[in-house]
Amino acid sequence: MKDTTTTVMDRCDLLANISEESGLIVRPFGSQAMRETNDLVSGWMCGAGMSVRRDVIGNLIGRYEGTGDKTLVLGSHLDTVRDAGRYDGILGVMASITCVQQLHDQGERLPFAIEVVAFADEEGLRFGTTFLGSSVFAGAFDRKRLKLEDKNGITMEDAVRNFGGDPFALESCGRDADDLIGYFEVHIEQGPVLEELDLPVGVVTAIAGQSRVSASFTGKAGHAGTVPMESREDALCAAAELVLEVERAAKAETGSVGTVGEISALPGASNVVPGEAHVSLDLRHQDDETRVRLRDHLKARTREIAEVRGCEYEWQLRQETPAVPSNANLSALLARAVESDGLTVHQLPSGAGHDAAQLAALTPIAMLFVRCKEGISHNPAESITKEDVGIALDVMSRFLELVAGEAD
Amino acid sequence: MKDTTTTVMDRCDLLANISEESGLIVRPFGSQAMRETNDLVSGWMCGAGMSVRRDVIGNLIGRYEGTGDKTLVLGSHLDTVRDAGRYDGILGVMASITCVQQLHDQGERLPFAIEVVAFADEEGLRFGTTFLGSSVFAGAFDRKRLKLEDKNGITMEDAVRNFGGDPFALESCGRDADDLIGYFEVHIEQGPVLEELDLPVGVVTAIAGQSRVSASFTGKAGHAGTVPMESREDALCAAAELVLEVERAAKAETGSVGTVGEISALPGASNVVPGEAHVSLDLRHQDDETRVRLRDHLKARTREIAEVRGCEYEWQLRQETPAVPSNANLSALLARAVESDGLTVHQLPSGAGHDAAQLAALTPIAMLFVRCKEGISHNPAESITKEDVGIALDVMSRFLELVAGEAD
Repeated sequence: MKDTTTTVMDRCDLLANISEESGLIVRPFGSQAMRETNDLVSGWMCGAGMSVRRDVIGNLIGRYEGTGDKTLVLGSHLDTVRDAGRYDGILGVMASITCVQQLHDQGERLPFAIEVVAFADEEGLRFGTTFLGSSVFAGAFDRKRLKLEDKNGITMEDAVRNFGGDPFALESCGRDADDLIGYFEVHIEQGPVLEELDLPVGVVTAIAGQSRVSASFTGKAGHAGTVPMESREDALCAAAELVLEVERAAKAETGSVGTVGEISALPGASNVVPGEAHVSLDLRHQDDETRVRLRDHLKARTREIAEVRGCEYEWQLRQETPAVPSNANLSALLARAVESDGLTVHQLPSGAGHDAAQLAALTPIAMLFVRCKEGISHNPAESITKEDVGIALDVMSRFLELVAGEAD
Repeated sequence: MKDTTTTVMDRCDLLANISEESGLIVRPFGSQAMRETNDLVSGWMCGAGMSVRRDVIGNLIGRYEGTGDKTLVLGSHLDTVRDAGRYDGILGVMASITCVQQLHDQGERLPFAIEVVAFADEEGLRFGTTFLGSSVFAGAFDRKRLKLEDKNGITMEDAVRNFGGDPFALESCGRDADDLIGYFEVHIEQGPVLEELDLPVGVVTAIAGQSRVSASFTGKAGHAGTVPMESREDALCAAAELVLEVERAAKAETGSVGTVGEISALPGASNVVPGEAHVSLDLRHQDDETRVRLRDHLKARTREIAEVRGCEYEWQLRQETPAVPSNANLSALLARAVESDGLTVHQLPSGAGHDAAQLAALTPIAMLFVRCKEGISHNPAESITKEDVGIALDVMSRFLELVAGEAD
């Protein structure tokens, strides 16, 4: 019989072959690939002694009964981005099932039930809406989203129905929170921090809050040959100053990240001084106050840069989400589990969003990150080692024991 | 009878109505609009006592005989960019015809003949090749261009033939230089310098040389949330440094202009750290040595910026043209003509290219710039005043007298 770590790795490999496009991994919500994936995973849940059901959006829920009334939820997602890696989301579900399998094989019952949830849509590939599965589970779905259409004009309402779900129950059929102890998710880090520290796993302190901004400068377009440098109102030069200020200011606020990922200059000809320039800003921090301070500083600097250059500016806050801290008690137990494996405990925020951020509205959360190669994710080059997965499984089992100890 | 200045302004207005698209000025090479324009202008040339012919590319040439064997060429172009102004090129042709008209009306002959050339293609709108008309006139046409196609798939060869020209004579039928005294062109400044100095006209010292460069940085794309600032190789930040260095260095080299008109960041998503960034550089100066120094400095800085950030870089010199100085003797006469009109002589380089730059291969050149509103050109808002045109006509007539004085 295979060891548990091999089982996890093999199942991740197997699911990597189930895709809407051959040669790459693409599993949008409601697709045939998701159907096949759910069927397979459902079988593995059953094999681990779980009763399996699907909820109104198509999240797969396997329940392994305990000796008490309470429930601990484990999980992650099975959908993917286009041309994805094989571990983002998948690892958390496979690890959870394997942990339950171990309990089942040993005939062991914990003082609480375990529910393993395989969320049906975290990436939002099909409708551009992230956390679709976990938002329904957490009772946080907004029914206005039902009218959204995918690229073929199919509404979310129809997609949910075709996938066997009930679109009009999405808003009201969240998981009851009364019996919940908490939610625990294992996920690849999707960043380079653990690799740089030479650590296999890390304890997530919080899921960072985000500010997304569109900033623009309007100067004066002109002929690149005939307008002297002193007479210019070059909107791209203003934008370039802001790009570097985002970098400088984010470095200055420890733990911040600030990114300009999109830039454009108009009219966009090599022999025309840009009259307009547009940039996107993405600012994140696990502490909301720090993020807001960074955001406000950059807004002030945008105004100053524009003023000095005689340009106009626009600053449009497009989206803002607060940070979601991990639960202190669960995270302390998780840190003890890491320690008891003889490892250094490294605590780090998650700069990326996760299903756990949605679940936090329902129940206390904790997360364990697993080192991934070069921090690469959302890419076929996504890679983790079998050794690290083995460690994550040990930590997870130990964590369940520690939670059980508290529940007794 | 109209005064000469009114005639010039009215004719510019009239030609503004002849276009391939209604509501805006569009006159590409070989178009019906160019045919109609040439017919009208041909009539005005005849009315000014000139004999008119078309050369092998369709340049319109009006000749007003003098008392000696030599010839002075005056001219500019009648084609336009898309959605053009009404003065770029046109003014020079109209002013030249009006000057000859004055001589003709007064029955005056100069000791040299005057040829007014209305070039058939300077802007290169149709085939993307600037100075088509003047390059043929100057004997500098490259027959490889004949295979170029316009957006409808019509080759230049066919377009020249359809316009009544002889495609296979383009390379060999340049103007004989033996009898030429020089070439003189009046043109709107297309920049803000004269307006800022409150001067109606300026004497062009040289047509600036240009270096066009494509520069790229390659760093490492990454997740905007999960890659710490210290671990990044952000290609856009490198490009932003270069954008600001182009501005700083061009300001430091007096008389230089340096422009980044195009920029792109890849993959170009707001939540992804750019792994690649591309910029265009446009560097100009009337002194080639200075321009080359600026170019080499920026290349060295590009390498340094890349090295400090752990990025790769590419530096591709796409196009380079040397500066074309005005002829010292003709320009001195032109300056005297400006002075004799009671005006301050301001000498300035032309940052934009002009037919004169092609003619310089054939004969000494001189150019007079006329102030234009806010430096705006290649735009319907292109604007000049009647007063300034009057001054330009006076200066032009006085210049002809001074050249005649030397020719005697």
